Amino acid sequence: MPSPSPSCQARVLSRNNLITNTSGIAPGYLQANLLILPSKHARDFHDLCRRNPVACPLLGYTTTPGNPHLVQPPSCIQNPDFDIRTDFPKYRVYQHGKYLATRTDLLDIWRDDYVGFLIGCSFSFEDALTSAGLQPRHQKTGRIVAMYRSNIPLLPAGVFASGSCIVSMRPYREEDIEAVRNVTRPYLATHGEPVAWGWGAVEKLGIRDISVPDFGEPPTFEGGEVPVFWACGVTPQMAVESAGDKIEDLVFAHEPGHMLVTDLTSDDLQRL
Amino acid sequence: MPSPSPSCQARVLSRNNLITNTSGIAPGYLQANLLILPSKHARDFHDLCRRNPVACPLLGYTTTPGNPHLVQPPSCIQNPDFDIRTDFPKYRVYQHGKYLATRTDLLDIWRDDYVGFLIGCSFSFEDALTSAGLQPRHQKTGRIVAMYRSNIPLLPAGVFASGSCIVSMRPYREEDIEAVRNVTRPYLATHGEPVAWGWGAVEKLGIRDISVPDFGEPPTFEGGEVPVFWACGVTPQMAVESAGDKIEDLVFAHEPGHMLVTDLTSDDLQRL
Repeated sequence: MPSPSPSCQARVLSRNNLITNTSGIAPGYLQANLLILPSKHARDFHDLCRRNPVACPLLGYTTTPGNPHLVQPPSCIQNPDFDIRTDFPKYRVYQHGKYLATRTDLLDIWRDDYVGFLIGCSFSFEDALTSAGLQPRHQKTGRIVAMYRSNIPLLPAGVFASGSCIVSMRPYREEDIEAVRNVTRPYLATHGEPVAWGWGAVEKLGIRDISVPDFGEPPTFEGGEVPVFWACGVTPQMAVESAGDKIEDLVFAHEPGHMLVTDLTSDDLQRL
Repeated sequence: MPSPSPSCQARVLSRNNLITNTSGIAPGYLQANLLILPSKHARDFHDLCRRNPVACPLLGYTTTPGNPHLVQPPSCIQNPDFDIRTDFPKYRVYQHGKYLATRTDLLDIWRDDYVGFLIGCSFSFEDALTSAGLQPRHQKTGRIVAMYRSNIPLLPAGVFASGSCIVSMRPYREEDIEAVRNVTRPYLATHGEPVAWGWGAVEKLGIRDISVPDFGEPPTFEGGEVPVFWACGVTPQMAVESAGDKIEDLVFAHEPGHMLVTDLTSDDLQRL
């Protein structure tokens, strides 16, 4: 029997709560953000993603309604004992648009009408940055990337009628920005190139204090570095927050920085 | 010989400069916005549209580089004497990101490396609004829809590194907004549902004076009506403006309100 792939191993470690965050885990394998919601809101969420593909890039993989073990199409997750309720390291639970709790699994609160959407994750292009000699700081230091609420509006779709985008930030030297843009540009399904860069972008994006991220860990800047911002897969959670009471049921998402390691690889990105 | 279709007739009228604007022309046929640029910038423009699909929805139709007569796939324009340089009623010419002139054709300034992109147009969903008893004011009055520069950022793509979205505005009564949203929601390829609505949206979008549009004609509001804003296909022109000197060659676009009437119909929208 062949040994399990690094991606499958990462999921088993996640299931058993042995991973603190997934940055740098199973290099070469794509990671995915998550939103799970009742099927009656699935159409609106799908539209939201199509209208805001930079922040909410659909990977094209969803769970079959009510079946937490099957991701369609199946190329994304190949082991049959997969469970979307356990195989992310951590989950966030929302109700009426409010964050309720962080949990390590969803086993006792799962319902048969839930559908899970896998969403592209910028961790996927970090390998490409590293290969180009542009390794993100937080990967070197083992921290969680800094994430901020921005003022980039989410364009409405049905019940998701307001909200704004979350951005992740990686420090780079000014002279490296064009290279960073070029390396990440092809990754359209995983946020692609930056949405803003330079110190001027902090105010432009409505970020009050770069040293106090809304999610993740505070960043460190070295000499000559400026912030470079990408759209971030935590954004769907902001859409859920903004929908508020319009979604009465529990909604689940991944905990920022704690993604699903899929069996897809960087080579699959071209067709996503 | 069968008589030409209303769409083909509209193109011939446009070619001969016999149409003042295309609102309400050839009902049921989709209209298209335009951007024509040198092929070396086509990849970046394509990425820009994929990253900003609400304001810049690619219809999936382009001219073959250098051939102004052939739109691919051909279902969009069926008459072989079609000419993208003449069959829009009016064109705008840009250089170094600056508007130079409005012209009725591009015959003498066309070059063999130009590629034309057809972009979805909100005129396409106006028929649906009319069918639902929600005819847009400017169609009733024969005016050009009011358009404004907004602060919704265009997410960068290559040479198109900044800029913001243009929005079109149609007045509706507050109690009709959910119906208006529902009717236009399925038209994802032609801007879809509104991006903002209500008097509060004017300031939120950074519009200084609703009575002074940046393009089109001033709107009129009747009792109880509020502004409803959609993303607008003039937006690619803002992307060209913001690229400035990075695009040295001439770039062409349609004159706002003066679109191409295509042979596609509302029935084609589902698959676009």
